[in-house]
Order: sequence, then structure tokens, then C-alpha cells
Amino acid sequence: MRATIIHGPGDIRVEDRNYPTVQLPTDVVVKVTASCVCGSDLWPYRGVKPTHQPSAIGHEFIGTVESIGDDVTTLAPGDFVIAPFVVSCGACPQCLNGVTVACDHLAGWGGKDDSGHAIDGGQGQAVRVPLAESTLVKVPGITEPDDALRASLLTLSDVMATGHHAALAAKVGPGRTVVVVGDGAVGLCGVLAAKRLGAERIIAMSRHADRQAIALEFGATDIVADRGEDGVAKVRELLGGVLADSVLECVGTKESMEQALHSVRPGGALGFVGVPTGGAEAPLRYLFDTNISIAGGMAPARTYIPELLADVLDGKINPGRVFDTVMPLEEAPEAYRAMDERRSIKVLLTP
Amino acid sequence: MRATIIHGPGDIRVEDRNYPTVQLPTDVVVKVTASCVCGSDLWPYRGVKPTHQPSAIGHEFIGTVESIGDDVTTLAPGDFVIAPFVVSCGACPQCLNGVTVACDHLAGWGGKDDSGHAIDGGQGQAVRVPLAESTLVKVPGITEPDDALRASLLTLSDVMATGHHAALAAKVGPGRTVVVVGDGAVGLCGVLAAKRLGAERIIAMSRHADRQAIALEFGATDIVADRGEDGVAKVRELLGGVLADSVLECVGTKESMEQALHSVRPGGALGFVGVPTGGAEAPLRYLFDTNISIAGGMAPARTYIPELLADVLDGKINPGRVFDTVMPLEEAPEAYRAMDERRSIKVLLTP
Repeated sequence: MRATIIHGPGDIRVEDRNYPTVQLPTDVVVKVTASCVCGSDLWPYRGVKPTHQPSAIGHEFIGTVESIGDDVTTLAPGDFVIAPFVVSCGACPQCLNGVTVACDHLAGWGGKDDSGHAIDGGQGQAVRVPLAESTLVKVPGITEPDDALRASLLTLSDVMATGHHAALAAKVGPGRTVVVVGDGAVGLCGVLAAKRLGAERIIAMSRHADRQAIALEFGATDIVADRGEDGVAKVRELLGGVLADSVLECVGTKESMEQALHSVRPGGALGFVGVPTGGAEAPLRYLFDTNISIAGGMAPARTYIPELLADVLDGKINPGRVFDTVMPLEEAPEAYRAMDERRSIKVLLTP
Repeated sequence: MRATIIHGPGDIRVEDRNYPTVQLPTDVVVKVTASCVCGSDLWPYRGVKPTHQPSAIGHEFIGTVESIGDDVTTLAPGDFVIAPFVVSCGACPQCLNGVTVACDHLAGWGGKDDSGHAIDGGQGQAVRVPLAESTLVKVPGITEPDDALRASLLTLSDVMATGHHAALAAKVGPGRTVVVVGDGAVGLCGVLAAKRLGAERIIAMSRHADRQAIALEFGATDIVADRGEDGVAKVRELLGGVLADSVLECVGTKESMEQALHSVRPGGALGFVGVPTGGAEAPLRYLFDTNISIAGGMAPARTYIPELLADVLDGKINPGRVFDTVMPLEEAPEAYRAMDERRSIKVLLTP
């Protein structure tokens, strides 16, 4: 099969790999229908995160179950499934608490499972899925989704689940005022999640016309292009002299975290899903003085998918709109370039 | 009247001051029935916080309304009232959000009000209360509480409200497992608040027999005397191999914050009410990696008092047990020494 391999900074290749087979009785093999490039895939691509050896890459995919291990009873060949961005067991205390990203048997696509077997990356034609019953979510009644549905289902792997996580962490709910910092796919999904959870006012911080358009389509009531103190002043002005009840931080830099933190009203909530980099921090004393709560981290996508899936299937949300580019898998190197150069918001790859 | 004045580190004196009178139409004057010494009063006493000039001190008191300003209609002479530890207006966006400690017209006992008039400290015989209707909470049907009720009502000024704040910030609720770091009056009230909110398991971290006894009386199910890694290991053992759902940090030092943070399970919640000192921090990356939420700060006591008061009056909670010593106001210097040397958990002063 063909699969995307990262060899080092800027060096993405699509290569031949052995077609995966069931290794363990709890495995299934999924034939990939669609995968995509994540903002976090750009860290090794940009050399921010080292690549020590050529590695299969990609952690967001949907597809059809092809073969199943002997212990698999809740999935069958032909089932259409969504893969969350990590493998989880569904039975450890962390999974039972809904925090599947802290699973005792956590494993990542392109890494190794608990027993030391290699796991395929998501940006390929097929993937062996360990702990398949607890990891995958079956999409009932679907065998071949149309393009729009395919795109929306794929967002549940990561970005829509992550936007939802940010919104929950920021305590978004009916009547709340919301600011979303970050206009990447996750930030845009954060806008959609906030709208879905009933926010009254949603201010999207964005400087790019294409992203602003999607934010508005997703439910943003206002766009603020200013940053820093000017951005905070604009938020305050829009909200009648006060700051926001809920702020979603969807970038992870020092600047974006400061922007987010200073947009929250006293006693408000900050939800952060941007991986903290470049000195991003939330000083404890500032939190104490303002009574601002902060929560976030990697989204337990597996926990959220069933609820979000229902709304996708009902047509209530259409998060797939974040994909502005579709390319064949063979063009993965160009997909990375397009995302790196911010020519694309998010690229969907068809195997 | 007699009032407690701090002159500098270790220098507490009880002196004569002019009896307060109504200065503004929204003032009332309260004759103090009981006041007390707070852990935070020990900062200037210990020189951690500078004292630039002799200042009236004390921010927790209860008493009887003696005289009222022309605009006061909801309070009358003879009313028994509880004073939260700050003055708040009840009408600004922050107060309307319940965050009275961030009030636009915030003022502190022993400080100055919005109009520049000095405010008496709480450790005295009488206090002019600005913005009295929104600041004070009337205790219905009480004129002269007995000693036990007096003590419990006084805790609502600060420590019981603060313990409650820590518990809410740590998302305590039915079925949750809880660790309380800190066995001062606030930590003990945190135990009581956790019990009141339905926690299933409450582990009090304490090394002092007298405090352990009160923690158990307040609802602690377990006591852990170990600290650092040993303390965390003990918590994990008591909870069957996992960490706590909710942790209350009621000290504020670097060590106590680390103890607290490392006692929270992935996806759990830390509530912190100890003022961060000595390098206490909560690294953002650790929060991201663990999905631990953190919230806290100064408790909006004014917001919480009505709810807690109802339970005090019903005899459901008896937070006044944190007072292990009662002294006449004239002995305030000895009260400070007793608290400073940890001979007393908390000292109640009778004018």
C-alpha cells in the first residue's frame, strides 16, 4: 500500500509499505476513505519536533473495516468507522472517567502499541487499529459518504472534537459570551462548538478573509482582526465594557495565550487546546487575582464522537467546511507545503 | 472605641480610635459582636507584606447594626449581620456575575472606600460599613447568637466561604474523591464544604492531631500525614491505584501547590484558595498533558453566604468548630502570637 512517511524537516514522501494485517485478536484493519494533515503534523515538518528516523505520519482518518481479529464482536467487515487521534482501551480508570487521551494503554498512529507492534500512520491506504472496539466509533447506516459528509466525519477524528473540548473547558453554554483565539481548523471548530452549545455572542479573532467567512458561517457574531491590547479593547467594546465569559485558546503560543487570558472577565473561563509552546504560560497569581479558571489539553475525541456524530448525521453541524482543499494521497508533500505556507486551512487526502 | 492596629512586623496593639459614624447615605455602622484573626493577617505580622504606616486590621466580623445612612432601607438598627471580607456594590457586572471580589467599587476593611473615606478594621468594637446593603448579609431572627452559633456565623465572613470556593473550584460533588491540602481553618472548612457538597471520599492531609480530629468531625474519611511523593503515593493507595477527582489547595506555597497538583487524576480538578507565594505555580504544559483544570482565587463570600447561612441556621454544618481559642479583643497581640506559633488554629476575639 501507499503511505505517507516523514523523513525529516520538510521531507514528506509517499512510499510503498506492507499492507497491514491483523496482529492481535483485538485488532481490525481499516481501509482508509479519507485522512488529512493536522496543524500538529507541521511541528516535525518544520523541525520544531525532531524526526529521529523515517516514520509513518497522520492521526486523523475514517474508513471501512476490512478484516477483524478473533476477539472483535462489535465491528464487522464493511462497517464505516471514525478513528479518534489516539488508541484507547475503554476500560482503565482514565477511559472510564472519559479521559481517553490518558488511557493506561494509550498508543498513537505511526507509533507502537502496548505489545510493541508498529501501528500504521493515518495518512495511508490502510491502518491496523489496535484495541479496535474501544478505539473506533462505528457510523451507523453509512457505507459510502458523499464528499460533504466525508469531510465532516473526518473532523471528528480530531479538530471538531478538539474545538468542542476547548468550548467545554471554557464553560461555554447558553447566554455566554465567547472569544475564540486562533482561526485555524481547530479555532473554527471552536466557533462551531460554541454555537452548538448555545453561546449568545461569539467573537472570532481572525485576520484572514477566507477564515473569517467560515467563522461567520459557523456562528461567529463578530470578527476582531486586532491583536494584543487593541484586540482586548475591541472585545471589551463589543461586549459593552466587559470581557468575555468564555475564551477558547486554539493556538498555543505565548502571544495567543496572553491574548486569550486577557480577554476573559473576572471569574470567567479559559479553555486551551493549543499545545503550549514558545513560553506560553498562565501565571498562577493572575488566575488567583482574577478568579479565571483554566482547563484544556488533548481532547478525548473518543468520548465526544458519539454526541458530535449524531449532530453531523442530523445535518445540524457541518464541520467539514474547514477543509478548503482536497488532494490525492500521492500529493501529500504538496498538502504539507500548502498548510505550512497557510495557503490551505486544512487539506483532506483521498487514498 | 478600642481597635486593633498593626504598626509593623510583630507589632500589634489595641488602641483608642474614634467611634465610627455614618459618612455616606449608603453606610451603616455595625457594633461588632465577634471578629477574628485570619491566616492572611499573619503576612504583615510576619513582615512578608510591608506595613508602611499604622493600620487598622481585621477583615472578618459579625455584629449588630447601630445606625444607618439615609439611603439604607433593607437594614435597620438591631439587625444582626455578617460582613464578607470585602465591600462590594452588588450592581456592577462583576457583582452580577457573582464575582464580588472583583467589584468595580471593591474596598477592604482597614482601607478606604471609593470616596476616599477611611474604613475601620474588623478587629475592633465597631465598623463603618460602606455600600452596606450590598455588602452585609442580614441573619434573620437572630439578635444574640449563642457561642457556637456566633462562631459558625463568623466563619461565613471568610474561611467557610473560602473552603466552599475551593470545593466548587475543584468541582466537588456527589461521588467525587477529594484531597484537601492544608489543615488550617480554610483547609478544615474545605473538608466540611466537600462533605456538604456530597463528596464520597475526603482525604485530609494533616500532621497535627488537633486538626486531624476536626477534619474527621467535618467529614474526612481518611487522614494522610505524609508529604511530597510519599503523600501522593498514600493518596493513590487509599483510592485504589488512582489519584483524586478533586483537590483543594488551601495553603499557597510552592510545596503545597505541587502536593496538590500531583494528587489530581488526569482530567480532574484543582481548586486553589491559598494566595500563591514563594514560587507556587501550575505549569501550563503539565495542565495540558494531564487535562487537569485549575480554578480559584479570593472567594466571593458575599455570593455564598446566603446558601451557607441557611445550613448553619439549620444546624447542618458547624464550621465554628475551627475556632479553638476565644480571647477578649484586648488580647489581640497574644491572639496573633498564638496563631503565628500555630498554638491556635484560629482565634475568635470578643470586643
